[in-house]
Amino acid sequence: MKKIINKPADFVPEMLDGLLKAYPDQLSYEEEIQCIVRADAPVEGKVALATGGGSGHLPVFLGYVGKGLLDGCAVGGVFNSPSADQMLIVTKRINGGKGVVYIYGNYSGDVMNFDMASEMAEMDDIEVRTVLVREDVASAPPEEASRRRGVAGMVFAFKCAGAKADKGGSLDEVAAAAEKALANTRSMGVALSPCTVPMAGTPTFTIGEDEMEIGMGIHGEPGVKREKLQTADQITERMMSAILEDLKPASGDEVAVMVNGLGATPPEELFIIYRKAYDILADKGISVYRPYIGEYATSMEMAGASITIMRVDDELKELLDHPAKSPFFVQT
Amino acid sequence: MKKIINKPADFVPEMLDGLLKAYPDQLSYEEEIQCIVRADAPVEGKVALATGGGSGHLPVFLGYVGKGLLDGCAVGGVFNSPSADQMLIVTKRINGGKGVVYIYGNYSGDVMNFDMASEMAEMDDIEVRTVLVREDVASAPPEEASRRRGVAGMVFAFKCAGAKADKGGSLDEVAAAAEKALANTRSMGVALSPCTVPMAGTPTFTIGEDEMEIGMGIHGEPGVKREKLQTADQITERMMSAILEDLKPASGDEVAVMVNGLGATPPEELFIIYRKAYDILADKGISVYRPYIGEYATSMEMAGASITIMRVDDELKELLDHPAKSPFFVQT
Repeated sequence: MKKIINKPADFVPEMLDGLLKAYPDQLSYEEEIQCIVRADAPVEGKVALATGGGSGHLPVFLGYVGKGLLDGCAVGGVFNSPSADQMLIVTKRINGGKGVVYIYGNYSGDVMNFDMASEMAEMDDIEVRTVLVREDVASAPPEEASRRRGVAGMVFAFKCAGAKADKGGSLDEVAAAAEKALANTRSMGVALSPCTVPMAGTPTFTIGEDEMEIGMGIHGEPGVKREKLQTADQITERMMSAILEDLKPASGDEVAVMVNGLGATPPEELFIIYRKAYDILADKGISVYRPYIGEYATSMEMAGASITIMRVDDELKELLDHPAKSPFFVQT
Repeated sequence: MKKIINKPADFVPEMLDGLLKAYPDQLSYEEEIQCIVRADAPVEGKVALATGGGSGHLPVFLGYVGKGLLDGCAVGGVFNSPSADQMLIVTKRINGGKGVVYIYGNYSGDVMNFDMASEMAEMDDIEVRTVLVREDVASAPPEEASRRRGVAGMVFAFKCAGAKADKGGSLDEVAAAAEKALANTRSMGVALSPCTVPMAGTPTFTIGEDEMEIGMGIHGEPGVKREKLQTADQITERMMSAILEDLKPASGDEVAVMVNGLGATPPEELFIIYRKAYDILADKGISVYRPYIGEYATSMEMAGASITIMRVDDELKELLDHPAKSPFFVQT
């Protein structure tokens, strides 16, 4: 896999340098410790939201730092957790006096470091709530749902909790908004090709020219099944049936749908997938309240896509509709 | 190259079907003739803007149909021109009584068909102005600039002309805004890998695992030079020096910068490129008025990137800053 990079070790710092040169009015940066916060952080009197995780997934994670979204993000190396110290610095930088909600994916390194940061923050009298994202139905069966990975569905949690905080919600209300969004959210992905971590220089996995892996994670974690490449409709049916079996929406329900490209998949193909997902939902009497189609959580140059469905009620619709603005996500 | 598609012949119609299912409030569709227009078209009393071209470049072309942008788009097959009939239908559907400006890339099929449509429209008493986009400095030397291809720089023409029309400009003023944007715009790209047209099933060209092509077009047209893959900084220097030699901005000038991914290139790499482009400009005393970093004009799953620079004055800054909203492009 060819890359437009300089030294692999400079990949993340140079990316952050470019980001800050592009959006100095929106973002600010603690260079020594690699964390990105809103330029106006801390926002006094607002509950702050933090995330963090490995690089290589843009717009996840730092792309959701912005108004109506998150306040700060600890930036790890490619596919590597940021440290507890980074997360603590973010926490202190963004706390506007009403506490901080952590929302991040269920990966062991991130969990360990965020837990440590949260303990240290509490010692500094900053109240913290933690919301773990684990909505990938392919990563564990329902009875072991707490083991599931967090993938693109975290964007719905960012959006809803960010809106709740922007509207003046309390620490518990903001955490509850994220939990409610996630309780109604399920995702599944399919990978057609691997990606290459710059420091490693070799693909994360190998896959035949005629194969796909259903249920693969965004770091190349094993999926449900490796098999021959199917049509867009068959792939969409597979992902949708796994998601809907788990989420169990009823006829008459409304949902938000995210069709997410993992990196190399053209937008045209995402619309072909959306078309089928829409039809499957319509057949079940379920209507789409709001679609999100594009690249929201990637694996660098991986080919593939994921579908995320969030069942929405009036509260989640209002939170979804709330305006938001980051360099990567603008909603009017 | 693996694709998530059904029958190759259904690629474009199914993509359009998905698009219309996603954004029925923003877009409407003349199914028989494959054209996309604003849902509120025609906007009475506003100069209308039309484009058209082959599919496979999303968000170009149809992704810029929206408020403050274009009114309609004739949608061709992958890398194929739409017909003169399609363009005529678009013209009639969007004309709000003040005439129509065509803005499209300098490709022979498009030129022939748009010219034919414009003659037919004039017979129907619809005044038409044509603005041809040809800003790719790699595609012909300055003395043959009229032969140059149109690439991502067309987005700046769409943005500025769309804003001028939205602000009530006359037919000539809107065409002049597009011409002015383009007179100040230059682009250049680099390709690292080919893409595959669904109906053909084979890559558009072959390139070695350690090679890149500087100056390649968005359909895989030959560039300036095939050579060994260089670093991000070297690649950026190459593109920037070709652009700046041609555009000749002066110290003290302000520019808009677009770093555009061609499909498979991760956003992280685009920021690494932007960082270097910003530094090169800063060294010359040129400041960035507004950055655009992301996928604006693609070649399906091609790996590579392009840089577009537009020199801006007060008028172009005001037009760039005007709000715009399409399913693919939101600016507040």
